[in-house]
Amino acid sequence: MSLFEQHESNVRGYIRSFPAIFDTATSATIVDIEGKRYIDFFGGAGSLNYGHNHPLINQALINYIQRNGITNALDKATVAKHDFISAFQSIILAPRHMDYKIQFVGPTGANGVETALKLARKMKQRSNVIAFTNAYHGHSLGALAVTGNEFYHDDYYGVPRNVNKMPYDNYFDHDMDSVDMLRHYLADGSSGYDLPAAVIVESIQGEGGINVASVAWLQKLSELCKEMDILLIMDEIQVGNGRTGDFFSFERANIQPDIITLSKSVGTGMPMSIVLMKPDVDVWSPGEHTGTFRGNSYAFVAGSAALELWRNDDFSRSIRAKGEQVEQAFRRLQARYPGWISDVRGLGMIWGLESLVEGFCNEVSKQAFERGLMMETAGASDQVLKFLGPLVISETELEEGFEILDDAMAAAVEQYQQAGKAPLSA
Amino acid sequence: MSLFEQHESNVRGYIRSFPAIFDTATSATIVDIEGKRYIDFFGGAGSLNYGHNHPLINQALINYIQRNGITNALDKATVAKHDFISAFQSIILAPRHMDYKIQFVGPTGANGVETALKLARKMKQRSNVIAFTNAYHGHSLGALAVTGNEFYHDDYYGVPRNVNKMPYDNYFDHDMDSVDMLRHYLADGSSGYDLPAAVIVESIQGEGGINVASVAWLQKLSELCKEMDILLIMDEIQVGNGRTGDFFSFERANIQPDIITLSKSVGTGMPMSIVLMKPDVDVWSPGEHTGTFRGNSYAFVAGSAALELWRNDDFSRSIRAKGEQVEQAFRRLQARYPGWISDVRGLGMIWGLESLVEGFCNEVSKQAFERGLMMETAGASDQVLKFLGPLVISETELEEGFEILDDAMAAAVEQYQQAGKAPLSA
Amino acid sequence: MSLFEQHESNVRGYIRSFPAIFDTATSATIVDIEGKRYIDFFGGAGSLNYGHNHPLINQALINYIQRNGITNALDKATVAKHDFISAFQSIILAPRHMDYKIQFVGPTGANGVETALKLARKMKQRSNVIAFTNAYHGHSLGALAVTGNEFYHDDYYGVPRNVNKMPYDNYFDHDMDSVDMLRHYLADGSSGYDLPAAVIVESIQGEGGINVASVAWLQKLSELCKEMDILLIMDEIQVGNGRTGDFFSFERANIQPDIITLSKSVGTGMPMSIVLMKPDVDVWSPGEHTGTFRGNSYAFVAGSAALELWRNDDFSRSIRAKGEQVEQAFRRLQARYPGWISDVRGLGMIWGLESLVEGFCNEVSKQAFERGLMMETAGASDQVLKFLGPLVISETELEEGFEILDDAMAAAVEQYQQAGKAPLSA
Amino acid sequence: MSLFEQHESNVRGYIRSFPAIFDTATSATIVDIEGKRYIDFFGGAGSLNYGHNHPLINQALINYIQRNGITNALDKATVAKHDFISAFQSIILAPRHMDYKIQFVGPTGANGVETALKLARKMKQRSNVIAFTNAYHGHSLGALAVTGNEFYHDDYYGVPRNVNKMPYDNYFDHDMDSVDMLRHYLADGSSGYDLPAAVIVESIQGEGGINVASVAWLQKLSELCKEMDILLIMDEIQVGNGRTGDFFSFERANIQPDIITLSKSVGTGMPMSIVLMKPDVDVWSPGEHTGTFRGNSYAFVAGSAALELWRNDDFSRSIRAKGEQVEQAFRRLQARYPGWISDVRGLGMIWGLESLVEGFCNEVSKQAFERGLMMETAGASDQVLKFLGPLVISETELEEGFEILDDAMAAAVEQYQQAGKAPLSA
Repeated sequence: MSLFEQHESNVRGYIRSFPAIFDTATSATIVDIEGKRYIDFFGGAGSLNYGHNHPLINQALINYIQRNGITNALDKATVAKHDFISAFQSIILAPRHMDYKIQFVGPTGANGVETALKLARKMKQRSNVIAFTNAYHGHSLGALAVTGNEFYHDDYYGVPRNVNKMPYDNYFDHDMDSVDMLRHYLADGSSGYDLPAAVIVESIQGEGGINVASVAWLQKLSELCKEMDILLIMDEIQVGNGRTGDFFSFERANIQPDIITLSKSVGTGMPMSIVLMKPDVDVWSPGEHTGTFRGNSYAFVAGSAALELWRNDDFSRSIRAKGEQVEQAFRRLQARYPGWISDVRGLGMIWGLESLVEGFCNEVSKQAFERGLMMETAGASDQVLKFLGPLVISETELEEGFEILDDAMAAAVEQYQQAGKAPLSA
Repeated sequence: MSLFEQHESNVRGYIRSFPAIFDTATSATIVDIEGKRYIDFFGGAGSLNYGHNHPLINQALINYIQRNGITNALDKATVAKHDFISAFQSIILAPRHMDYKIQFVGPTGANGVETALKLARKMKQRSNVIAFTNAYHGHSLGALAVTGNEFYHDDYYGVPRNVNKMPYDNYFDHDMDSVDMLRHYLADGSSGYDLPAAVIVESIQGEGGINVASVAWLQKLSELCKEMDILLIMDEIQVGNGRTGDFFSFERANIQPDIITLSKSVGTGMPMSIVLMKPDVDVWSPGEHTGTFRGNSYAFVAGSAALELWRNDDFSRSIRAKGEQVEQAFRRLQARYPGWISDVRGLGMIWGLESLVEGFCNEVSKQAFERGLMMETAGASDQVLKFLGPLVISETELEEGFEILDDAMAAAVEQYQQAGKAPLSA
Repeated sequence: MSLFEQHESNVRGYIRSFPAIFDTATSATIVDIEGKRYIDFFGGAGSLNYGHNHPLINQALINYIQRNGITNALDKATVAKHDFISAFQSIILAPRHMDYKIQFVGPTGANGVETALKLARKMKQRSNVIAFTNAYHGHSLGALAVTGNEFYHDDYYGVPRNVNKMPYDNYFDHDMDSVDMLRHYLADGSSGYDLPAAVIVESIQGEGGINVASVAWLQKLSELCKEMDILLIMDEIQVGNGRTGDFFSFERANIQPDIITLSKSVGTGMPMSIVLMKPDVDVWSPGEHTGTFRGNSYAFVAGSAALELWRNDDFSRSIRAKGEQVEQAFRRLQARYPGWISDVRGLGMIWGLESLVEGFCNEVSKQAFERGLMMETAGASDQVLKFLGPLVISETELEEGFEILDDAMAAAVEQYQQAGKAPLSA
Repeated sequence: MSLFEQHESNVRGYIRSFPAIFDTATSATIVDIEGKRYIDFFGGAGSLNYGHNHPLINQALINYIQRNGITNALDKATVAKHDFISAFQSIILAPRHMDYKIQFVGPTGANGVETALKLARKMKQRSNVIAFTNAYHGHSLGALAVTGNEFYHDDYYGVPRNVNKMPYDNYFDHDMDSVDMLRHYLADGSSGYDLPAAVIVESIQGEGGINVASVAWLQKLSELCKEMDILLIMDEIQVGNGRTGDFFSFERANIQPDIITLSKSVGTGMPMSIVLMKPDVDVWSPGEHTGTFRGNSYAFVAGSAALELWRNDDFSRSIRAKGEQVEQAFRRLQARYPGWISDVRGLGMIWGLESLVEGFCNEVSKQAFERGLMMETAGASDQVLKFLGPLVISETELEEGFEILDDAMAAAVEQYQQAGKAPLSA
C-alpha cells in the first residue's frame, strides 16, 4: 500500500475506506492479494451491474481481441459499434417504443451530462436549467453546477451558475409538492426562476442518499416540462441499465424523457457513456461535441454481450426477486437494530439503510469490510448504507453478505454502546 | 452505413470523412468489412501511439481477462494499478528526475484538463487562467473555456469566463514575443489581465494546426510562471506519450511543469487519463474530485505493457528516425506541389502539411481515403493535413502511405486545376 | 411630445403611461404645460416622500446655491456632507441605538445594491447570495442578478449567477415557512444551496406587487442569518425614508440588519444613495469602490433639511394616520367593486389594490390619469394599483385622489362590462 | 474631520489625499472652512468642466427652483427635459450631422456603461465584448468587467467574464498595431477571441494614466468594427463634454460610434448620465432598462444652460488655447526636473505628467495641496500627475496653479534627494 500513499495524489478516496489491494473477481466476489474474499455490495458504484468477469462478456472480449478487432475508432463506424447500436435498438429501444437517436460521448457520466446540458441549452437557446437538492451529476464544471454537494464546490472554480435548485420529491416534510412549486415559479415572470432549457433529474438519487421519486411526481414533472416547453433530461447513469428491474428506471412512470444519459454499466464496467435524445432534439452540427474515446470498441463488444440478457423478461424478474430479498433482509436489520437504523428505502436492486446516529454507517462499513463485505455509504453526511451489488449476484453471495452486515452492525452497535452513545429514534 | 445514419445523432463527424465500416487492425493498418486496407496516418487522434493490437499488449490483456483480473475498481488499490504506478514511476518519472504525484481521473482528456484547472484554482485561490490562441483542451465546460475554437462555443453554454487568451508562440508575424507580452500585462495591475492561478499550454498545438512552440519560448514561459507564482500546466494529452520522440514533449525544453495532463495513448487506446502534479501542488482533500472510471484496469494492464518500450532509448531513437522520414517525405511533397503546399512543420512524429488553398486539404484527405490512406486535417479552417500515425508504424506502411498521399495530392491538384483554381504562394 | 418620440430611445416607459409634459409641482400636486393638475399617488416611485418642492427644502437649496456652496466633491469632506452625516447620526441612528458606518455611493439605488453585495461577498469570501421571488433591486448587472423579473433578464447579459432564489413570505399558499425552507437547505450540505455571503431582502416588496413581509418572518430571517454567519442586507431603497411610518421599514420587526441600502427620498428626489453597515462589516480598503457623484451636495443639503422632520414623532404619527385613510379608502373601493378588486394590502403609506382581471389595473391607471390622478401599477403582470403618494400629501389632495380613483374604476368596470368581461373572485 | 473618521466607511478615498473640509467654490477656486483657497486642477474628476457655481447655471437653477419646477420625473416628459433634449439636439448633434437617439439612464457613468453593454449584447445576441488595457468604465458588476484595474476586482464578485482584453494604442513598445492584432484574432475562428457584440473604448484614458489614442488608431478601430459587424462604444464620460476642445473627444478622428456614453459634466456636476445610440441600435423594449433618477430636472436645467456655451466656436477655441498653456507649462516643468518627470502627454485640457520615480507624483500632489493646489494622480501605480481643471479656469488661476505645482515639485525633489533617492531616466 505504501506505493499508493507515496505516489498517488491525496485525492484518493475509496482506497481509504477499503484498504486492500484487489486482484481478481467473479460474479459478486472479489479477492485481494492475500487471498481474502469480499462479497461485493458496492458494484463498482453501479458500473458492474453484470457482475465481475461475466463469462460470456469475457469470452466475447477475448474473441474480439484475438481477432485484432479495432480498439478505438473515435466516432468512425466499426463492426463493434454497429453491433452495439443494432442490439441496443432492437433489444432495448424498439420493444419499448422508444424513438431516440444515440450519441456516443466521452466515456464518463459527467461527459454525458455535459453533453445533455449543452444540447438542451443549444436547442432551446436558454441558459437556465433546473436541478434538484441532493442531485449528483458529476464533477466537470458544467456537471458540477447541477450537483448539490457543497463539498465539491469552490468559488474559484466558478460554480454554480445558470441553475435553479428545486427540492426533490419529498425533500420537505410537508404537503407541498415540489413540481407544484416549480410550476408556480415558472408561471410567475418575476419569481427569479427564468424559463429553463431543461430539467435534469435522477429518478432515484443514489449518491444523494437513495431517495426514490414517486411515480406520480415523475409524471407531474414530465407533464410540466411538456406544458412549458422545457426539455426533460433523465440522468440514468447510476439507476439505469437495469438497476431498478426495468432497463430504464423511469419505465415505472411510463414517461419518455427528451434526453437520457447512460453510462456506468452500459459498457459492463469499461468506460462508455451515451446520450439518447428524441429525434427533434438532435440539433447538433456534425462534430460540434467531440472526444477521443467515444469509440471504445471493447466496451461496445462487452455491452452488446450484456444486452443479450435483456432479450426476454427473465433478467428483470430475477432483479426484482433479488431486490425483494434485499429489502426483506434490510427490514429485518432495521427491526433488529431499532434506533440505529431509522429507515430502509430503495427499489429493485438499489437500497439504503439510513441511520441518524452520527458516524454509525461509516463504522458499519468499516466493520463489514474487515469481515469480508464491501459496502459504501451515501448521502451528504454519509448517513446511508448503500446496497448496489451486481444484478447477477447469487443467492449464496447475497446471504453471505447479509450475515456479514448483521455481524458488522452488531459490532458497531456494541462499540457505540461501549462509548456510551445511544441510538436515536427517527 | 444506414444503421448509423438512422440511429446515431447528427453530431457524428469522422464517420463522414472516413465512410467505411472498420473491422480489424494491426500496427498501422486498418481493414474494413469489405477487406479493404487503409494505412493509418491518423493514429486514433494520438490515442494509438503504440499501434493497433500490439501483440504484447493484446497478450497482456488476454492474460488479465483470463485470470479474471478485476475490471473497474474506481480509485481502490488493485494489482493492475499498482503495477502501472510502479512502472510509470520507475520507467518514466525516476529516470527523468521528476518528482510528481499521480492522480487517476475520469478517463477523458477533458477530465484531466478540468482536474488540472480546478486543482490550480483551488491551490492558488485565484480563478483566472491564461490559455492560448488555437489551444484545444476539450469540450466539457471548464475545458471548453480554455479551448479556442469558436465553433465549439455557444453563449448559452456559458463560456468562456475567467480566462485570458494570449497569442501562442509565433502567432503574430512580428518580433514581439508573447511571453514578454504576458509579462507586461501581468506586471501592469491595470491591464485587465489579473494574476492567474495557472497558464495552460500545449508544447505543440495539434488540433490548432501543428504549431510547434520553440524551446526558448517554453523556457521563458516556465520562468515567467515561476517568477510570478503561477502554476504551469502542460497539456500533454496529444503530444505526450512519446509523440515527439521524448516521453514528454516538453523534455526538449528541459522544464518541469507544475501540473501535467496525460491521456490518449497512456492506456494504449483504452480510455484513461492521469494528472501529474508537483507534491506541493497536491492540495486535494480526499475524494474531492471523483469519477466512476478512474480505475480502468484493462487500460492499466495495457499501459504497463506499453511502458516497457521505454526501458531504454531504442524507442525514442526509432521515433526520431521515422519522424525524419516523415519530414523528408513531406518536404518532397511541398517541393512537388509548390503553391499547393505552403508549409511543412512538426517535430518527432507529429507533422503538418499546410495549404492556403481553400478546401485543398480536405480534398486530399478524401482522395487519400479512397486510395487507402487515413489522414485527417487540422486547424481552424482545416488548412493542415495532419500526420499522427502510430509510433510503431513500419517502414513499409510509411512508404505505402507516402505514395498514396502523393497520388491523392496529384488527383486533388488536377481536380482543382480542372475547376480553374490556381495554387497560392505562401 | 413629438420631440421625445423623435429623439428619445424606445426604452422610455412612464412617458407612455402618463403622456403629458409636466412643468411644476408642489406637495402632491403636479401641473402640466397646459395647466392641468394631477394628484400624485406615484411619488416619484418613492423618491418624493417629502413631496414636491417642500418650501423648507427649496429654501435651503437656494441659500446653498446663492452662497456658492460646493456642488460635487466626490468623497472629499464638505460642509454639506458634514451636516448631513451629523444630522443622520443624531436624528436617525443614535435615537434608534443603531451603530452603523455610512458609505456614500454612486447615486442610484442599484449602485447601493451593488455596493452591499460586493461588500458582503468580500467580507465573507463567498460568492453566493440569497434573494427572493418578486424582488426588485435594480438593473446593473450585479443588482439584476438578485432581481426577479424575467423581463429584465437576457442570457447575453450574463444573469443571474451565484444567487439562489427563495420564496418570499407567504409566496406559497400553504403552511411552509420559507425561512424554514432556507434553514433546511443551508443545513443540508448537499442541497445545492451553498452557504451564502448574504441574504438581500425588502421588508415590503414594492415593484413586486406590495407584498408585506410579516414581523415574525423578518425576525426568523434575521435569526437564521445570525445563526449561520450570513449577512442580512435590508434593501430600504423604496420602503425606507419613512414610507411605512418608521424611518426604516424594518423597525417594526425590531431587527438590526448588517447592511442597509437607502436611496430615493434620502436626497428628497435628487440622486443620492447610501449604504449603512455594521462597523465590523466595514472591510473596504480606501478607494476600493468609487464613483464620481458620491458627493452631490445639493442632495446633502436637501436631505439634511428633510431629516429635521424626524426630530420628533409628529411626522411618523401623520404618516400612520394618512396611511389608515388610504387603507380605508381602498377597502371601500374593494367593497364597491367586488370581483374587480381582489385584495388590498400594504402598510403605512404604501398600498396596493390587486385585481385578478387581466389588464384592469392598467385601464384604471389610464382612466385615472385622464381624470387628473397619477397612479402606477406594480407586480409582474401589472396586477396591482400602487399607492406611493408623498408622505406630506394633504388631506384635500388625498380625498381628491380617492374620488378620481373611484371614478376611474367605475369607468374601467363599465368599459370591461361593455366588452363582455366579467369580474373574478379571488 | 473626526466626524468623517468616526461615521464614514473606511472606503473613503479622496478625503485622505485632500484632507480639508471644503465649503464654497467659484470658477476653479475652492475655499475650505478655514478660508484657505485652493486652485482646482482636479475639476471634480471631469464633472466640473463648466467650473464651480457658474453664474449662469446657478441663476437658471435658482429660477427653476423658485418657480417650483418639477424635481424628479423619472422618464416622464417635463419641460426641463424637453429643453435639454432640444438644446442637445440643436446645439450638439445637428451641427455635427450626428443622428442619434438619446437614452436617459441612472445618473452614474457606470450605469451608462452598463446600459451600453446590455444594449449591444441584446442587439447583437452575443455576450463577448472587447475592452482595453488600463480602461476605466466604472464599478458596478457589468462595468467592472471591462475595467482593467485589478485593485477593484475580487473573484467573489464574479468579474471579469465575457470580455477579451486588448492592448490600447501604443501599449506595447513595438511596431505591432493592436487593431491589427484584434483583426487577426477575430479573423481566426480558433483564436479564443469570439466575435464580440461590441468594442468599448475611451479615446483618451484618464484614470489609466492619460493615454491618448492616435487618430489613425481610432479610425482603424472604427473601420474594423464596421467591417466585422461589431458595435463601437465610445465612453466619453471623462473626456467628452468639451474636455479635448471638441464636444466629443472622438471628433478629431472624424468617426461616428454606434453608442456613446456621456456623464460627469453633462449635468454640470449634478448626477446625470446619457447614452446616445444610432437609431438602428435602439432595440430596447419600452421600460426594459429603468431607474429612479433618470429625470434629474436640476441637472437638465443646468446642463441646458451649459450647452449654450457651445452655440459658437469661442468655447472650443478657449479650451484649446488654455490647453496649450498647460502643455507649455508642463513641458517647462519636465525640462526643469529632468529624470523626475519622464513624460508629458495629453490633449486639450487633459494632461499628465509622468514620473517613473516611485511615489513621486503622490508626494508632489501632497506638497501641492499644502500649498493650495488640488491635483490628483492617475495610472495603475499613481505614476501620473493629472490635470483636469475646469475648462472655464481663468488665466490667473492657471498661472497660480502652475507656480504652486513648480514649488511642490521642487519640495518633493528636495525631499527625495535628502532621502538619497535619485531621479530616473525614462
